This record gives sequence, structure tokens and C-alpha cells, in this order.
Amino acid sequence: MWISELATTVGLPVPTVKFYLREGLLPTGTPTGATRADYDEHHVRRLRLIRALTEVARLRLDGVRAVLDAMDDESLPWHEAIGSAHRRLGAVSGTPSPAASERVEGLVRDRGWTVHEGSVQRAALAHALDALDSLDHPASDELLHTYADAAEAIAAKEVAGVHGEDRVSATEHVVVSTLLLEPVLLNLRRMAQENASAKSVDRRHREPAS
Amino acid sequence: MWISELATTVGLPVPTVKFYLREGLLPTGTPTGATRADYDEHHVRRLRLIRALTEVARLRLDGVRAVLDAMDDESLPWHEAIGSAHRRLGAVSGTPSPAASERVEGLVRDRGWTVHEGSVQRAALAHALDALDSLDHPASDELLHTYADAAEAIAAKEVAGVHGEDRVSATEHVVVSTLLLEPVLLNLRRMAQENASAKSVDRRHREPAS
Repeated sequence: MWISELATTVGLPVPTVKFYLREGLLPTGTPTGATRADYDEHHVRRLRLIRALTEVARLRLDGVRAVLDAMDDESLPWHEAIGSAHRRLGAVSGTPSPAASERVEGLVRDRGWTVHEGSVQRAALAHALDALDSLDHPASDELLHTYADAAEAIAAKEVAGVHGEDRVSATEHVVVSTLLLEPVLLNLRRMAQENASAKSVDRRHREPAS
Repeated sequence: MWISELATTVGLPVPTVKFYLREGLLPTGTPTGATRADYDEHHVRRLRLIRALTEVARLRLDGVRAVLDAMDDESLPWHEAIGSAHRRLGAVSGTPSPAASERVEGLVRDRGWTVHEGSVQRAALAHALDALDSLDHPASDELLHTYADAAEAIAAKEVAGVHGEDRVSATEHVVVSTLLLEPVLLNLRRMAQENASAKSVDRRHREPAS
């Protein structure tokens, strides 16, 4: 198909598709003349992924590039490609404080979780706790355990859904489930917040003043 | 304090602080000469928020601007400022499919949730479901309900923690709890995934082949 059909299929303007080609995020098509190239299903799929990572997962361009690079690096066994994508996504600038790192350490111990010592998630979590502290909105232990309970329930269901797949499908599966299910969870959290907030106002209106 | 002390206090390089000043994200200090200005605690706080939104919540510059604009717009009553920040953050490009919108509609109904008809979260959720469908990784109803259960448990705890506060603190509270607690939840989810995955491999190794 020509670039115009590719763009229409995926629902993006042609200049946007050209931009991704120039940036090297989308492989060039097969040349069929001086100025034309032919695109196939592989391009459609890759472009849908780029669109989802940008619009739904809200990644910046460098984030999209990191994810695609990890997916494309065939020198890595697939379970390492997954780790690599996770690491590139989770990389935090700066070092978390010893106190925050120790808190994360304690949480992992309390939960009895098996989480790699050098896991970027540990550092990213500690970094987020530092940011909350610096803004005088520390996350309480109670809140962290509420989140951890929810995370455990979710992970149990998610991991049960992963089957043996080929390398490309497996890394794409992880990218999709990590990045594209996150907005699903976050939007449900905001909706549940709105609901809890509405119900709580409602209750206060109906209860007699004490 | 001078700009160098401001930068050191927040832990950012001076050129980065100058960049935020040029972009209008950080208000200029009080001029104390032709080329010097004085900065105070308000600037420290704002700069910490910008840093957290960029590094921890991973917002793009336009996202940071949208959040700060909503916080600063004093023409809005604070509960509307919260809605405005939510809307600006959640805005999705394009219209979700009728099927995905209907699915979100059904979920809200099944859960008995009170969620505003025009809520951006509804559209953002439908948009995410479309993206997952387009990549052949549809989210099952079972998974959505697992997420919704978790979201309900989390929201109940979170809403209980909001007290009457002045407008600036209240909007900042929402920004912080919406944007900065999200990375906490997401990192815990990834850690719980790693744990569930490790435990499941472990189990397979110990169980006799059937």
C-alpha cells in the first residue's frame, strides 16, 4: 500500500507518518520508484503501536524509541528484551535517598516479594516517595500497603494470562500489558475516586448533623 | 536567594531553572539589579513540583504547563480547578469507537459507579480499550473487573484522606495524589508482576511433571 493508505488505515495524518519515518521509528517501505515506497501489514502494526504508545501511554518520543529499540534488538534473548524495555522505561535520573530506598526495601520484605535487587522499579518507587516527601505529601505505610494489596491481586490475574509465545509476540505482549494496561488502571482509579468522592458528599448531605 | 541557591536547593542545574523561567513555568523572581533576581520559598515549591511532574510523573512540557495553568487559574472555584486539571490531563485526541464507549458505559453501570457523563476518564478508558483491540490484545471483562476492584479499594482509602484545605493546597493535593501516586501504584504493580512471575516459575520447577 502507499503511504496515504497506510496513514488512513491507522488513522494518522500523512505528515505524522512521514515524521516517524524520518525519526527512524517506522522502517522505510520497499522502494517502487524514485519517490514512492510500498508498505505492508508489518508497518500497519508498528504504526498502531507507536500511536498507542504516544496517545494512550503518553510516552515522549525518546520513550517510544527506547521501547521499540528493546523490542527490535534481536541480540537479546526475549526475557532479557523484556527486562531491557522495563529498565529503559523505568530509568530514573538521580539517586533516591537512603531513607526512601530503605522504605522500599522494608516493604518488599514485609510483603515477602521476590524482586531483583537491582530492579529499576525499586529505584523508581523510592524516587517517587522522595518526590512526595519533598512536596509535603508523604505516602503513608497504610496507603502503600493498600496499593500493594491491589497490585498483588492484579498481578496474579495478569501473570496467569501469559502463555508461551514467540519472541516478537512475547516482548510486544509485555510492552502492551505494561504500558497500555496502565492507562486502563489509572483511568479506572480516577473514575473510582470520582465515585467515592460523590458518594461521600451524598452521605454527608443525607446524614443529620451531629 | 539567588538563582544558584534555588537550583542547588531543588537539585537541578542552573540552565534547567533558566529554561523553566524562559518557558514561563516558573514565575520570575523579584529584580534586585540589572541582571539579578531574588527567589523565595514559593519558587522552591513550584520548582519541586515541576521537577516531580517531569521526572516522576513523566509529563511532557505541555502536560506540565496544563497542570500548572489549571492550578493557577484563580477565576475557577477550586473544585472546578481540579476538574479542569483532570480534563487537561486526560484529554484524548480522536473519538473512541461506539463499541468501546458502550463497554465503558456497561462497566460503570455494572459497578454502580457515579461518574459524570462527560468525564474525560470515560473517553480515555474507551480510547485505551480501542488501542488494545487494534493491537490484538483486548482487555477481558474479567481483567477490567479485577482492575475495578483494585481501583475501588484504593479510592476508598484515598478519598478518606482528603480534608478541607485552602484552594492552593487542595488543587496541589489533587495534582500530587493523581499524578505522583500513579507512579507509586504502577511501580508496585510491576514489582508484584515480577514477584508473581518468579513464584510461578519456581512452582513449575518444584512440581513433578504431570
